[in-house]
Amino acid sequence: MTLNVYLSGEIHTDWREQIIGGAEGLDVCFASPVTDHDASDDCGVAILGAEPNKYWHDHKGAMVNAMRTRKGLADADIVVVRFGEKYKQWNAAFDAGYAAALGKSLIILSQDEHQHALKEVHAAALAVAKEPQQVVEILRYVLNGSLPT
Amino acid sequence: MTLNVYLSGEIHTDWREQIIGGAEGLDVCFASPVTDHDASDDCGVAILGAEPNKYWHDHKGAMVNAMRTRKGLADADIVVVRFGEKYKQWNAAFDAGYAAALGKSLIILSQDEHQHALKEVHAAALAVAKEPQQVVEILRYVLNGSLPT
Amino acid sequence: MTLNVYLSGEIHTDWREQIIGGAEGLDVCFASPVTDHDASDDCGVAILGAEPNKYWHDHKGAMVNAMRTRKGLADADIVVVRFGEKYKQWNAAFDAGYAAALGKSLIILSQDEHQHALKEVHAAALAVAKEPQQVVEILRYVLNGSLPT
Amino acid sequence: MTLNVYLSGEIHTDWREQIIGGAEGLDVCFASPVTDHDASDDCGVAILGAEPNKYWHDHKGAMVNAMRTRKGLADADIVVVRFGEKYKQWNAAFDAGYAAALGKSLIILSQDEHQHALKEVHAAALAVAKEPQQVVEILRYVLNGSLPT
Amino acid sequence: MTLNVYLSGEIHTDWREQIIGGAEGLDVCFASPVTDHDASDDCGVAILGAEPNKYWHDHKGAMVNAMRTRKGLADADIVVVRFGEKYKQWNAAFDAGYAAALGKSLIILSQDEHQHALKEVHAAALAVAKEPQQVVEILRYVLNGSLPT
Amino acid sequence: MTLNVYLSGEIHTDWREQIIGGAEGLDVCFASPVTDHDASDDCGVAILGAEPNKYWHDHKGAMVNAMRTRKGLADADIVVVRFGEKYKQWNAAFDAGYAAALGKSLIILSQDEHQHALKEVHAAALAVAKEPQQVVEILRYVLNGSLPT
Amino acid sequence: MTLNVYLSGEIHTDWREQIIGGAEGLDVCFASPVTDHDASDDCGVAILGAEPNKYWHDHKGAMVNAMRTRKGLADADIVVVRFGEKYKQWNAAFDAGYAAALGKSLIILSQDEHQHALKEVHAAALAVAKEPQQVVEILRYVLNGSLPT
Amino acid sequence: MTLNVYLSGEIHTDWREQIIGGAEGLDVCFASPVTDHDASDDCGVAILGAEPNKYWHDHKGAMVNAMRTRKGLADADIVVVRFGEKYKQWNAAFDAGYAAALGKSLIILSQDEHQHALKEVHAAALAVAKEPQQVVEILRYVLNGSLPT
Repeated sequence: MTLNVYLSGEIHTDWREQIIGGAEGLDVCFASPVTDHDASDDCGVAILGAEPNKYWHDHKGAMVNAMRTRKGLADADIVVVRFGEKYKQWNAAFDAGYAAALGKSLIILSQDEHQHALKEVHAAALAVAKEPQQVVEILRYVLNGSLPT
Repeated sequence: MTLNVYLSGEIHTDWREQIIGGAEGLDVCFASPVTDHDASDDCGVAILGAEPNKYWHDHKGAMVNAMRTRKGLADADIVVVRFGEKYKQWNAAFDAGYAAALGKSLIILSQDEHQHALKEVHAAALAVAKEPQQVVEILRYVLNGSLPT
Repeated sequence: MTLNVYLSGEIHTDWREQIIGGAEGLDVCFASPVTDHDASDDCGVAILGAEPNKYWHDHKGAMVNAMRTRKGLADADIVVVRFGEKYKQWNAAFDAGYAAALGKSLIILSQDEHQHALKEVHAAALAVAKEPQQVVEILRYVLNGSLPT
Repeated sequence: MTLNVYLSGEIHTDWREQIIGGAEGLDVCFASPVTDHDASDDCGVAILGAEPNKYWHDHKGAMVNAMRTRKGLADADIVVVRFGEKYKQWNAAFDAGYAAALGKSLIILSQDEHQHALKEVHAAALAVAKEPQQVVEILRYVLNGSLPT
Repeated sequence: MTLNVYLSGEIHTDWREQIIGGAEGLDVCFASPVTDHDASDDCGVAILGAEPNKYWHDHKGAMVNAMRTRKGLADADIVVVRFGEKYKQWNAAFDAGYAAALGKSLIILSQDEHQHALKEVHAAALAVAKEPQQVVEILRYVLNGSLPT
Repeated sequence: MTLNVYLSGEIHTDWREQIIGGAEGLDVCFASPVTDHDASDDCGVAILGAEPNKYWHDHKGAMVNAMRTRKGLADADIVVVRFGEKYKQWNAAFDAGYAAALGKSLIILSQDEHQHALKEVHAAALAVAKEPQQVVEILRYVLNGSLPT
Repeated sequence: MTLNVYLSGEIHTDWREQIIGGAEGLDVCFASPVTDHDASDDCGVAILGAEPNKYWHDHKGAMVNAMRTRKGLADADIVVVRFGEKYKQWNAAFDAGYAAALGKSLIILSQDEHQHALKEVHAAALAVAKEPQQVVEILRYVLNGSLPT
Repeated sequence: MTLNVYLSGEIHTDWREQIIGGAEGLDVCFASPVTDHDASDDCGVAILGAEPNKYWHDHKGAMVNAMRTRKGLADADIVVVRFGEKYKQWNAAFDAGYAAALGKSLIILSQDEHQHALKEVHAAALAVAKEPQQVVEILRYVLNGSLPT
């Protein structure tokens, strides 16, 4: 059994690397959005031509990024969404909703201070964790049945 | 043709009333989440028993509310999601993602200051409006083909 | 908004009548399995001919009953499954699993003594209640937003 | 043709080993739930933090286990569910219902004494067997067309 | 609860009238193919222009009839397929397969002499009856829970 | 049985009126795109604000129109697509492909001169007609089984 | 591109071998029902226990065979169904209907004398052939674009 | 992550070769229709027998080609549709509509002069490009996150 795991959400810390590193040796296939903030913002206009209006600049980029996001979500068995300390992070919550509607197993990585604001998102999840290491432990348990010692 | 429209998101202003009032006479059937903030927060424990832990207090409520939200989203032809000025509003973005995955027509009501943060959500929408009146005009046009004069 | 609610499970007490009576005046359309135990056991052979082997006697009946169950589950927005004090009640758990796979909102009516044995079923539910009256209160809240006073 | 087979249900005897051993050499890919009873009960709190309330203790575990169960059921061509002599085994019946709603081919392993109680579950199955060896013979026949001699 | 029932198959006897007449007073909505043999054969060329080649003559008609058949099957809760004494009746078996793949509840009306030839079709059905009156009794039981006296 | 019919394609002749008029008295519910060419082109900017760039002007309008088109296609049992004498009419072919992928019954209204260019579209249709009156005759036959005299 | 092809229908001639042999070197993965007539008839009772009643004898076998058929149909890109000269062959027509409802590409292998009786089945097919060699040529063309010389 | 990409539309220039060549080294699996115009037109009659009527000649060919097109579209993550300078190209628009209804990520390759006529098709796309090289850059970005320098 190979688990396909999509790592959505916050792109400013190394939580993805912690999970991928921690899961070394497990039969997991990870996918993620493009996490280079500038590339992600500008991919639309860089490839398809400049837009004077910021709205359409952003729109073109968001649609190119959607090709990768949709593929990652569609192929995933488990979708992990991390909510960080800052910013609105509406794309993270959007991905969580999208994954929930597809019936994917959802793991939310979030902090106590956001507990109330995330209650609808948490209610759609099969696990709510605080640390990337807990996600690794879930993946190990789901694959091998072994618990942290 | 009757349009089923679900009005998701911000619950602190009267935008739903503006849309429902403005659409009077149109063949639209509206649905919404429970917009009484306290009832929405406490419905789980009020019906199913108290929880000392705030997380589970919120969890029980969010799951009861999900019964209404899922029904509203599943039945809708068009889902309108309004993002207000304040709060994280992750449930709004979650609903938008959920609706997008179900292939619903999505209208986002948002302000310029949130344009960049909402770019992935906007990219999944068929219309991005600023005023409730614009939503009314879209509904009138979709039903009757008549434009604002 | 009309809610379609299927009442599955235990057939030896009047819990269905309590819910249907309590929900009087609410815009709910209820459906249920045939709750006459003998008719339910014998419908297959009574209509389609006797079977000397008890297995096939039961099989024919279970398949005729499945026509009603599937229709009820397919049409439902909310599926309520009650687990009683006695018997194996595997058909109740089967209906709960079937409803979960269809993405229906699930309410489980169960007692404390069965909490551990039902943990997987509970984990798929949006509400776990002990009393029929709580189900009525959930339906009222989901439809009207009003909580018990 | 590779058959994906999920082995659900009773975890106290070695029926899974009998089937997997008997199917050696056949092109079958087996999956199962975690069958270590203690790990299965405690996985939620062991990874995500203790819960004083037994209900939520169980809930957290059941949801983590659901990630594995859902993956196994979703990937399966054939789902085998064994009902043992003891316990309520509602999770087994729940899995059977879930698999039936997904349109999976269902094999039930059960004993005569449970025949009546399982009639709705049996009615959704393509085979009802008493011995693990019969499941092996079905898998061999489905793959190779060869019958037991 | 209204049952939608599609009556497929043999068109040379009055079995449909027997069922529809027998079900008078029940909340059933029946649909059927066009049972005028000549109209059914010639509808394509009568409306869309003659074809010198019999194959295309038949093809055009079969495709126009498919519009009605697909609608009837798609809307049905229960599909009844009757196999008569004569002819190949491959369209009846085709409809049965189509209905099975859509997950519809299937009732087969057939005679003993065809039992072996129909075994795969019977295996997909929830009831196998010999007389139209039995179908009426099934519909009455499914709707009202009352058995023939 | 009510037939839902969506009338897609060419908007410069009165073919829709001919079909709707000819079908008077039949149990058909028709839907269509907005056929006022100017309104259809400008609806996006008229409601949601002007765009200096013609591409985005058109884009906003096409997305608002998509709300009506998707609803009409999703609700339809039968989709009629007319290809006229002039213009590229890619939106007509797009609707035909969309309807085909949804499994809708497709009727194409086209002229001999376009036969070769439309062969892939025709191959997905259940009827290819030249005159609106033929569509009326199909609808009458599908509903009532009566052929033109 | 690998094509998955399921070969359904008549089991008394070597048409499957002709197709599989003719397609040697093409990237095709073939599946078929069990074509040993006796094994196919008796598999149910041979594995799961004898039945005195021929109906249930056949039923048990048909259900075990359904595991293989459903897997073959579900995995297929193209389903080939051959109708032979003899017998009712209702299982062949059933498979064709099942495949059509799943949206599979359907090729029918049949003879002129059955043309009228098969018109509904043919109308659901993308090709109607008379010789196994034609099926090979279709597979070669679909994979490589090369036509017979 | 392997991307499956289907290249639909215009067959008179070497745009497919440019994309496939440009994407060398990327983890992309390309599929295309048969681009030999004569083979594509004649495949039906060449394999299945001549038709005196040009309509049925074309029909047989279009249906054989549909086997390849449907497989390519069904397997694709991303569908690229190019509209050339000449011809009606209704099959290109049909494929775009079909892909959109399946929820595929759509890239349109088109020229400015067709902008208005393609506005409904563009509105369903995640990217609208003018040059094959831009498609390569999108694929590279979606897979690797690297932008053109």
